[in-house]
Amino acid sequence: MGRLSAVFAPDRVAVVGATDREGSVGRAILENLDSGFVGDVIAVNPNRDEVLGHECYDALTDAPATDLAVVVVPPQVAVPVVRDAGEAGVDAAVVITAGFGESGGEGATRERELAEVAAEYDIDLVGPNCLGVMNTGVDMNATFGPEMAQPGNISFMSQSGAFITAVLDWANDEGIGFRDVVSLGNKAVLDETDFVDHWGGDDDTDVVIGYLESIKRGREFVDTAREVTDDTPVVLVKSGRTDAGAHAASSHTGAIAGSEAAYEAGLEQAGVLRADSVEELFDWSRVLADQPLPDADGVAVVTNAGGPGVLATDAIGDADLELASFADDTVEELQSFLPDNANVFNPVDIIGDANVERFARTLDTVLGDPNVGSAVVVSAPTAILSFDDLAEEIVDTQAKHDLPVVSCLMGGERSEAPAAAMSEHGIPNYFDPARAVSGLDALSDYREIREREYDQPREFDVDRERVREILTEAADSGENRIGVEAMEILDAYGIDTPTGEVATSPHEALDVARGIDGPVAMKIVSPDILHKSDIGGVKVGVEFNDVYDAYEDLVTRARNYQPDADVLGVQVQELVDLDDAVETIVGVNRDPQFGPLVMFGLGGIFVEVMEDTSLRVAPVGESEARQMTEEIQSAPLLRGARGREPVDVDAVVETVQRLSQLATDFPAILELDVNPLVVQPDGATAVDLRLTTDLEEL
Amino acid sequence: MGRLSAVFAPDRVAVVGATDREGSVGRAILENLDSGFVGDVIAVNPNRDEVLGHECYDALTDAPATDLAVVVVPPQVAVPVVRDAGEAGVDAAVVITAGFGESGGEGATRERELAEVAAEYDIDLVGPNCLGVMNTGVDMNATFGPEMAQPGNISFMSQSGAFITAVLDWANDEGIGFRDVVSLGNKAVLDETDFVDHWGGDDDTDVVIGYLESIKRGREFVDTAREVTDDTPVVLVKSGRTDAGAHAASSHTGAIAGSEAAYEAGLEQAGVLRADSVEELFDWSRVLADQPLPDADGVAVVTNAGGPGVLATDAIGDADLELASFADDTVEELQSFLPDNANVFNPVDIIGDANVERFARTLDTVLGDPNVGSAVVVSAPTAILSFDDLAEEIVDTQAKHDLPVVSCLMGGERSEAPAAAMSEHGIPNYFDPARAVSGLDALSDYREIREREYDQPREFDVDRERVREILTEAADSGENRIGVEAMEILDAYGIDTPTGEVATSPHEALDVARGIDGPVAMKIVSPDILHKSDIGGVKVGVEFNDVYDAYEDLVTRARNYQPDADVLGVQVQELVDLDDAVETIVGVNRDPQFGPLVMFGLGGIFVEVMEDTSLRVAPVGESEARQMTEEIQSAPLLRGARGREPVDVDAVVETVQRLSQLATDFPAILELDVNPLVVQPDGATAVDLRLTTDLEEL
Repeated sequence: MGRLSAVFAPDRVAVVGATDREGSVGRAILENLDSGFVGDVIAVNPNRDEVLGHECYDALTDAPATDLAVVVVPPQVAVPVVRDAGEAGVDAAVVITAGFGESGGEGATRERELAEVAAEYDIDLVGPNCLGVMNTGVDMNATFGPEMAQPGNISFMSQSGAFITAVLDWANDEGIGFRDVVSLGNKAVLDETDFVDHWGGDDDTDVVIGYLESIKRGREFVDTAREVTDDTPVVLVKSGRTDAGAHAASSHTGAIAGSEAAYEAGLEQAGVLRADSVEELFDWSRVLADQPLPDADGVAVVTNAGGPGVLATDAIGDADLELASFADDTVEELQSFLPDNANVFNPVDIIGDANVERFARTLDTVLGDPNVGSAVVVSAPTAILSFDDLAEEIVDTQAKHDLPVVSCLMGGERSEAPAAAMSEHGIPNYFDPARAVSGLDALSDYREIREREYDQPREFDVDRERVREILTEAADSGENRIGVEAMEILDAYGIDTPTGEVATSPHEALDVARGIDGPVAMKIVSPDILHKSDIGGVKVGVEFNDVYDAYEDLVTRARNYQPDADVLGVQVQELVDLDDAVETIVGVNRDPQFGPLVMFGLGGIFVEVMEDTSLRVAPVGESEARQMTEEIQSAPLLRGARGREPVDVDAVVETVQRLSQLATDFPAILELDVNPLVVQPDGATAVDLRLTTDLEEL
Repeated sequence: MGRLSAVFAPDRVAVVGATDREGSVGRAILENLDSGFVGDVIAVNPNRDEVLGHECYDALTDAPATDLAVVVVPPQVAVPVVRDAGEAGVDAAVVITAGFGESGGEGATRERELAEVAAEYDIDLVGPNCLGVMNTGVDMNATFGPEMAQPGNISFMSQSGAFITAVLDWANDEGIGFRDVVSLGNKAVLDETDFVDHWGGDDDTDVVIGYLESIKRGREFVDTAREVTDDTPVVLVKSGRTDAGAHAASSHTGAIAGSEAAYEAGLEQAGVLRADSVEELFDWSRVLADQPLPDADGVAVVTNAGGPGVLATDAIGDADLELASFADDTVEELQSFLPDNANVFNPVDIIGDANVERFARTLDTVLGDPNVGSAVVVSAPTAILSFDDLAEEIVDTQAKHDLPVVSCLMGGERSEAPAAAMSEHGIPNYFDPARAVSGLDALSDYREIREREYDQPREFDVDRERVREILTEAADSGENRIGVEAMEILDAYGIDTPTGEVATSPHEALDVARGIDGPVAMKIVSPDILHKSDIGGVKVGVEFNDVYDAYEDLVTRARNYQPDADVLGVQVQELVDLDDAVETIVGVNRDPQFGPLVMFGLGGIFVEVMEDTSLRVAPVGESEARQMTEEIQSAPLLRGARGREPVDVDAVVETVQRLSQLATDFPAILELDVNPLVVQPDGATAVDLRLTTDLEEL
């Protein structure tokens, strides 16, 4: 049992607001608790003496020592009730009551008070505005829903109470069981991160699943889920994936959702399997709950029907699973007993006249192959084949090899009993081969997640103080947009920049150019001019003799383009060698849920037109930074596509990490773009910088 | 009834090879026909006098006039039997017998003979190596499968007989009915194009569906399906989508499958809805068979549960459907009867205490909105809601508005009866909102397909003879790879090329350069050197005085690089203005099923690294050519991204059409690349050419 034992396995539960009024939530909860809970149930209601056979206490402070209080009082008195619970030494509370953050205004204030009281008394508080919690281990249904979960090894959290009601109604008929179920409600105190953490330490939970509309503490969630998923798979539907869905979700819960791109990156970094639909959520969690992990990448297909075998093979291809190549021994063994017109290679087609024995022996043979880590059995109905007998053989053969097996005994009613029989042994059956394969895909993905090594973000030796000075200086001048004039920020974090300075007069420009070898680059410096090149505000390869005129020309252009622009001067910079170099962009922005994110992509059209970027929640370790350089579509250009020399990817990887540290160290940096970061065959140089700060955060 | 009436609605059917041997295919077919067929059934078998109560004829030529012969004789006698059928005036034959093309060698020869005989006697022949055909209109089950289809308006073809068996077993329990069912077998004569054509003319077929592993006559299929889909939706699973699947499919049927890219382009051009899984095939075809098309793009969501409503909204976003924006009247009407804490905007959340009346009135209101073309009803189970009553209201409201409605009454057993009741009225119910929305997506996609205008490929005035001469000349020299020296091919088809010629000596090079204004481009010409720039075989901007030396230098480089290369000389070309231009590639290749395909993409990394290309089966009309320039990811670069001038897309569109005509006119051209086609703000110029020919085809 993990840290939330008072929530899921209390010895005594009090229903505060217990009542026998027909159709009331207070009555439903008391009845649900009474219908099985192995512990003690007490009722609290100052207006009653007795409710449904329970003596009624006036307040928790008058009642016997209680581990969990289920609160179903009107919203106006919910906060005092929780304070009472604190005074009475209650460890956990489930606040069913609605009328908090979701209704805005007064409710939001009330929710803050609720959280404060819970913190003051160290109460593990679920909700408010929720359906309640269940634990099948102690047969506790502390919800007002109509159905109790059946026992199982899946723990389930949901930000929608109705979704729990719907799932339980369905799952009980499908034979899917649960360990714990929790309706998260408004997550005023306990949130998804707490439950993932708890279930990670719960021996009776083998799979964690959830329906979420938001993640409250993004970075903490990533860190927690990353540890938990080393042992326990986590499968989530995070809704609001699309613009329309995100809008609907925020109007539903009132929660501010972060950007979908941040969720996508964060869930991936957390090792979470992200399902896009309810069907995927359960297709995946069923096999994760019941089947072993594959011990090899290859999948074997055994079928009596060519067409459906091809459909299974396509699904394997779609899923990035690998169709196993059989060892020679396996092929010989198959040849020894299969008819001549069978296909002994994968997908194995044992043809239409196959009986149950041929199916079983084939499955046994291929599961014994060292290249086969899992198998899918696909059968069309035939006159000589009993699906019932076949199901039995599949169960036995799967158990013998202890490898994942999924099944498509394709039929109507005739498949129902065999499917139920296999389901009892954890083998799912689908009409559609694609759905069966989807489960194997989840197992294989989870196996990869378990094998992941997460390296700690490296701590670089940087000059934090200098950056603070520069940002403070900017803040003092009231400017929240900073540009190339602050390249020193990058220097301070060990990122290479060209020699250069901002000149505020043609003479100063000459002075700066004098200190630089060869021709220089000159750029207008103004927080009001975002696209410098578009207005001719950049000159590259200016000879020393032309520097004076170039200064005046740049300033004139800026003035003509935008007369009211605040022109700070002209940056005079050493030229960066672009021969054999690739221009890239490294950026930072900040998400309301996940905090700083780092972005990497190739410069120009790749980011702007092709939207070919990679994103991670910061801070990132070296291997994550390296993945970013590998997963963009244009990655071959870094590795030297089309006969060019490869550029210094290591330098990019280090720059990304250093920026990640900068973004993590300074919450005041809201957005930052290094554009371009010129990556040469040896080294990477940041040529231009733009950042936006939040002065309040300094 | 279409042209294949003898196949699907014969007056008399003969079973050739009829027998009463237990477990035989001949017996199964006769029994299946006897069990319901409204027409006449006769038996043919020279070795019997009587079979299962049927008088047995020695041969079709001895039997009464017959429309359809079902042939279940050994492969060795199948061809003579079909010849007999021809002699007897039989219109159609279904050859069940296996042992033809699928078994190679002798079987392949036999299959060719079978096709020849069918052609000789004009017999509509199905198979060989198939399960048979069904038509529920005349209750004809001319298959040896265990189940007869239930009546319906879906016609179904399958290249896998086992898939039919599996589908019927399942569909009969799901309440899905069919009009015709045909097992295509080896498609020696009749293929998918014939059946699509037939069903396009069949008033009793409202949807055509199919499982295909190959398409035999690609271009004809595209043209036929394009016409049929104007009135009748066609939904296909084309398996072998992935490399593994394609390999499995070809070893299963022995058919050569074309490239997946060609199928993708061809099916899209044909107006076919391509399902990726069995689930999609039926989720889509059910709504297409039973529901009207939407009259507006917007979808309304009506739900009693926020979370599931968000899931439906995400599915709408995923599907590229549009969440409807309600008219003001609708919002006001909803406000007039919904509780204060309901959400009157889309997705409409009528909250957890909604009764059936509230659901019905809300659905009625939103379906009356002019912006709403379809709706999805999503309901979690609640204590006060009867799914049975709700189902009834959904059916009535759908009928009243005659707009597509799909449903997610989310639950287990409690949803079964209501789902069945709605299914009878064509409204599907799913637990997963994503699957319900998937059906609406299919309706909306089909509505778009119906609205498509296909323009006829334009016939350009070209110099076909000149191209034939050039190709013949190359053929005579035994060379099947032609390069820049044959730019005249493009000239002959009206595609702009720079002035230029192949010089075979430095002096000749000077002569050519003399005729060109300004500096020139010079390129080595050799069929053996594919990547000219990589070996320094291209010089751009050569001044007249340097032409002599440049010639010698290029030839020396080629010799050093590849001493045995056949160097034809050096192309001396007018320079093409690259200012403000975009380099693109236009290509042609040839697919075994679909014939010539045209390809378009942006030059260099876009095609080679980003694989950002668009493909179409040739010939293409103007609007198809234009779509090609619009659907690539890098399309914004043509339209003038990042402040640049747009280039002449019209010139690209015309070039694509001209090349499409060239490829269609000359089957001898196997592959052709114009790389680059330089597209300027005004015009497009083909700068280099490479093509491979098949000398036999000339």
